[in-house]
Amino acid sequence: MIYLNCDYLEGCHPAILEALTRTNLEQTVGYGMDDYCAQAKDMIRSRFACPDSAVHFVVGGTQANTIVIASALRPYEGALCAHTGHINVHETGAIESSGHKCMAIPAADGKITPEQILAEVALQGDDEHMVRPGMVYISMSTELGTVYTLAELEAIYAACRKTGLYLFVDGARLGYALAAPQCDITPEDLPRLCDVFTIGGTKVGALFGEAIVINHPDLMPRFRYMIKQRGGMLAKGRLLGLQFTTLMQDDLYFRIAEKAVEQAQRIRTALLDNNIPLLVDSPTNQLFGVFTHAQAAQLAKDFHLENNGVVDDDHIALRICTSWATTEENVAALLSAIAGL
Amino acid sequence: MIYLNCDYLEGCHPAILEALTRTNLEQTVGYGMDDYCAQAKDMIRSRFACPDSAVHFVVGGTQANTIVIASALRPYEGALCAHTGHINVHETGAIESSGHKCMAIPAADGKITPEQILAEVALQGDDEHMVRPGMVYISMSTELGTVYTLAELEAIYAACRKTGLYLFVDGARLGYALAAPQCDITPEDLPRLCDVFTIGGTKVGALFGEAIVINHPDLMPRFRYMIKQRGGMLAKGRLLGLQFTTLMQDDLYFRIAEKAVEQAQRIRTALLDNNIPLLVDSPTNQLFGVFTHAQAAQLAKDFHLENNGVVDDDHIALRICTSWATTEENVAALLSAIAGL
Amino acid sequence: MIYLNCDYLEGCHPAILEALTRTNLEQTVGYGMDDYCAQAKDMIRSRFACPDSAVHFVVGGTQANTIVIASALRPYEGALCAHTGHINVHETGAIESSGHKCMAIPAADGKITPEQILAEVALQGDDEHMVRPGMVYISMSTELGTVYTLAELEAIYAACRKTGLYLFVDGARLGYALAAPQCDITPEDLPRLCDVFTIGGTKVGALFGEAIVINHPDLMPRFRYMIKQRGGMLAKGRLLGLQFTTLMQDDLYFRIAEKAVEQAQRIRTALLDNNIPLLVDSPTNQLFGVFTHAQAAQLAKDFHLENNGVVDDDHIALRICTSWATTEENVAALLSAIAGL
Amino acid sequence: MIYLNCDYLEGCHPAILEALTRTNLEQTVGYGMDDYCAQAKDMIRSRFACPDSAVHFVVGGTQANTIVIASALRPYEGALCAHTGHINVHETGAIESSGHKCMAIPAADGKITPEQILAEVALQGDDEHMVRPGMVYISMSTELGTVYTLAELEAIYAACRKTGLYLFVDGARLGYALAAPQCDITPEDLPRLCDVFTIGGTKVGALFGEAIVINHPDLMPRFRYMIKQRGGMLAKGRLLGLQFTTLMQDDLYFRIAEKAVEQAQRIRTALLDNNIPLLVDSPTNQLFGVFTHAQAAQLAKDFHLENNGVVDDDHIALRICTSWATTEENVAALLSAIAGL
Repeated sequence: MIYLNCDYLEGCHPAILEALTRTNLEQTVGYGMDDYCAQAKDMIRSRFACPDSAVHFVVGGTQANTIVIASALRPYEGALCAHTGHINVHETGAIESSGHKCMAIPAADGKITPEQILAEVALQGDDEHMVRPGMVYISMSTELGTVYTLAELEAIYAACRKTGLYLFVDGARLGYALAAPQCDITPEDLPRLCDVFTIGGTKVGALFGEAIVINHPDLMPRFRYMIKQRGGMLAKGRLLGLQFTTLMQDDLYFRIAEKAVEQAQRIRTALLDNNIPLLVDSPTNQLFGVFTHAQAAQLAKDFHLENNGVVDDDHIALRICTSWATTEENVAALLSAIAGL
Repeated sequence: MIYLNCDYLEGCHPAILEALTRTNLEQTVGYGMDDYCAQAKDMIRSRFACPDSAVHFVVGGTQANTIVIASALRPYEGALCAHTGHINVHETGAIESSGHKCMAIPAADGKITPEQILAEVALQGDDEHMVRPGMVYISMSTELGTVYTLAELEAIYAACRKTGLYLFVDGARLGYALAAPQCDITPEDLPRLCDVFTIGGTKVGALFGEAIVINHPDLMPRFRYMIKQRGGMLAKGRLLGLQFTTLMQDDLYFRIAEKAVEQAQRIRTALLDNNIPLLVDSPTNQLFGVFTHAQAAQLAKDFHLENNGVVDDDHIALRICTSWATTEENVAALLSAIAGL
Repeated sequence: MIYLNCDYLEGCHPAILEALTRTNLEQTVGYGMDDYCAQAKDMIRSRFACPDSAVHFVVGGTQANTIVIASALRPYEGALCAHTGHINVHETGAIESSGHKCMAIPAADGKITPEQILAEVALQGDDEHMVRPGMVYISMSTELGTVYTLAELEAIYAACRKTGLYLFVDGARLGYALAAPQCDITPEDLPRLCDVFTIGGTKVGALFGEAIVINHPDLMPRFRYMIKQRGGMLAKGRLLGLQFTTLMQDDLYFRIAEKAVEQAQRIRTALLDNNIPLLVDSPTNQLFGVFTHAQAAQLAKDFHLENNGVVDDDHIALRICTSWATTEENVAALLSAIAGL
Repeated sequence: MIYLNCDYLEGCHPAILEALTRTNLEQTVGYGMDDYCAQAKDMIRSRFACPDSAVHFVVGGTQANTIVIASALRPYEGALCAHTGHINVHETGAIESSGHKCMAIPAADGKITPEQILAEVALQGDDEHMVRPGMVYISMSTELGTVYTLAELEAIYAACRKTGLYLFVDGARLGYALAAPQCDITPEDLPRLCDVFTIGGTKVGALFGEAIVINHPDLMPRFRYMIKQRGGMLAKGRLLGLQFTTLMQDDLYFRIAEKAVEQAQRIRTALLDNNIPLLVDSPTNQLFGVFTHAQAAQLAKDFHLENNGVVDDDHIALRICTSWATTEENVAALLSAIAGL
């Protein structure tokens, strides 16, 4: 059975395990105050061209999202997001459990627009009976594999600044987004186009770990209190530092993401060539093919893909996902299977 | 200027002020443990034919909703509700501030269906990454003035029991709902058709106050702890007891609601007779007329109505609301104004 | 049976019921935006000499405390308070339910000192593993009936400003505190000596209601959102406005408090004259006498007092409480009973 | 510089890194549903003789404590704990941020007694104005290095069952506790003496990770929802499974803890032999010596120990901590330094 259902099936890039093994018996201070974390933060600030940003590391994405949002919002504020947004759908109400409403906006392809943001703000007016939008949350890439372009991101951030909202870019799959052929955003662009973003490690080569990059000075003070309170502070914080120094070294993070996207795009071509429609057209490492039940059953003999919901009586959507660890053998096997449908 | 924009413009039915004045210098124990509260609870249990239900009083509707929901749900559970539901729109995220998601269901007329409930439960499956529906919240009458019929309520409660959800009926306007000509639900029906409901006093003759009636035994233990913690326990609880004894006496609550609904329905006829469309057709004390801007401007000279949002470039919806206190003079003035549009 | 166990046994000062009755059928806008509220706010700002303070009204004390504290603190901050503080003991964890720790400081007489505040802040240092003190909460009068002097309050506020903490004065019994013979604080002093305080109506002549006076500009923005979200916004807000205009008129609030304190101090003298020790010596309307079980049983024949806990095997503390409504007959009866012990 | 300040200075036992490396490119399902987690759970259930217990893994201790407590308590309940308890002091108010009060009990040596528990429950009575104790939280070993004996734990659990409280044993340092010479509790005893406990990996050989063992059936349903919502669910859950299979294999967990305790006890003897008093006498891997400032300065030249607070004008307490990774060389160096004080 070949698994292509998600991008967190394997452990980590071997270079990370080597770094952990090499440094294993060193003594370091805890809670992320060690030199490896300091070095990783510097490498991120340098690569993303944001010398004044604050960088923090936490273990997972739900933690990162909850900590950022709970830290940024006042108690009566909510986060505007696509109705498909991870915080709205797949975090068991973590944001609500911190007291804040996910204010969902319809988004067929997982992306929201500046017009939608402005309309929502206008709707709430200054009415204290309604939740006040305090932030816009977008995912890059989105939960449907799509990406914002530079022009789109600029327009969204302009809408946010105009209305006094923070912009938070959830980069759980940031590497795959930036590797998309049609994505004209560079790492250096990101810090000037949002107030806070994350660099996802879990899905792009790390054992675990997300970097939180805070660009807006108002979001910086005492952020470590939030991390500790919400269970995101790793005692042996160096594990996070070591992973991110390894991933930032020689652009490893970006190179392994690029490979996965290239594999996915070959699969995309095969799907289209074989008349398998796409639920949403994605330029990144996640594809959402619409299969007949017979086709799905045929694929299921050899491949574990992810059920993404019934499309109609005759069709089902399946997520196909490559990652830094996907082998060429597995890609070839899938291409061959698709051709045989 | 005549106000017909909402149903909490005046103080209270004079009989309540008389009762407060008559008993003012009596000494009673605090926090709702006094004889007036005991008597009011008995009167409610008797009138609604629910001798085994627990009855509590709180000051306001947002309190009542938050306390009931926060008490009934586990931390990872949410409340299914119409997207127009008061908890979803007009309580500044009070439910989320207690940690729970409002799981909004589209509802053009403010009402949800058993099919929608079952579909939502099926969608969440047993997936721990998603909020688990733990309750269904409906309003009676709804925020758009509509009412559930007996058959509809029975079907919703059956869907709830089948899926293990509690059913909570927000009766902030219960009096007006039960007074609707087409509502075939009686007070005696309600306790067997939901797990908990409220009897709204604020909008139906009281100075303030909502009665919470708990029918399901699992929701009863230590409910007073919840009331106290959430700021709903009035020190001089007798004020609530006295108001509800007065309202239950000789069905005052139902009679004054009936009068208001009768007035509203005369206005509804006038609107239709004068070709003013209705946003939603309501059989209760709230009407939502769709007016041209010119018509709205004409009315605004003498009447304060509530802006219920832009309908299209040429039209605006205005809420017209009668109450226990609406005078015949004001109704007559409005009928005349509508005729003159 | 004569009740002298608490200060919320009766309804309200008759002038309030008269005002409610007189205005009952007037139409006003809701949620505290009416003219009576505006007038009451102006009267408070004038009497307390704080023209730039923001004034809000809520129904009860637990609401007031939770709303103020949840509004002022960051998620990782707590409120320093006496271990006897109302928020720490008698609000069913309302503050914790809003996410914040009550950081209790030992206080035999209910009062805390600047030295204790500075020591707590020094202890927490800048350690993100510990709750950060964000506010000092004191009660005036305290839960044990004691009061801070002007010098004490000045020193506490100086300690707060030095350490960047807000100072919140819970004035649920503010009238009785200011009426204490040994209290050299005036209404005009209060706004310059704390960042936010409340003026308790419930225990000093109102049916219900607390005024929140915000002096620090940082605590002002969007405070009404907090009130609404936490269930403190009364639909018929005018009920609060009318009560406070009545209480502020001709210093009624202060005069009725003065009478109650004078009565209590006569009882205090009687206790001491009859060798009944005091748990804490209080100059306000609450007294805590230490009685033998025989004495307590003797008193219990005619008087309902409040059990304030076992002192030792032979003694029990009883709270005796006067109020704006306490009659001279009842005081005389108690004085006579004490003399007969 | 030799670090002996805490027990999370190094990476992990080498056998764990070997296991991670060996399995790195295997494909497994996520979120702890993989075979390694299943195997680790079975090994724990077997070693602790609790075939019917539920076992879950989370990344860190603050997560484990918050998830267990937030899952077990009703909104108005709190957790009784020693005032020195980790949840009360060193988790930045994580428990309060989940809505629950830490109800601190004085405990000079970090241990609480059944009498204290019963007294607290009696004090709260059935008073809805006070937080209701819902759970007892104890640490094993405590934050001061002490341990409960079998008789003590039995008596505490009996008190809990008598009063309807859950008993939660925080085992962040469980290995070191069970290795204490005077601890007569075995792994097999634990499940019958509490409702839920944790087995700390972070401080006893793992890179990170805590096992939560739930013995009481009422605490089991939908626990994974709580883990996910509170950010404790690791995408690559197998990392936790692999660590605990390694630690449970051939009792590695217990053996490495034993070595550390033996080292610490030699240091303890040296302290006492050299007239260094102990703040609290600890039989585990944490020692709290009371040093003069001159002695502390002397030690600080070569050793990094943890400041545990000022004892008096002349003395300071320093924590000395051994761990599974502490070398004999470092112990010998410290012994020699102590002898030279």
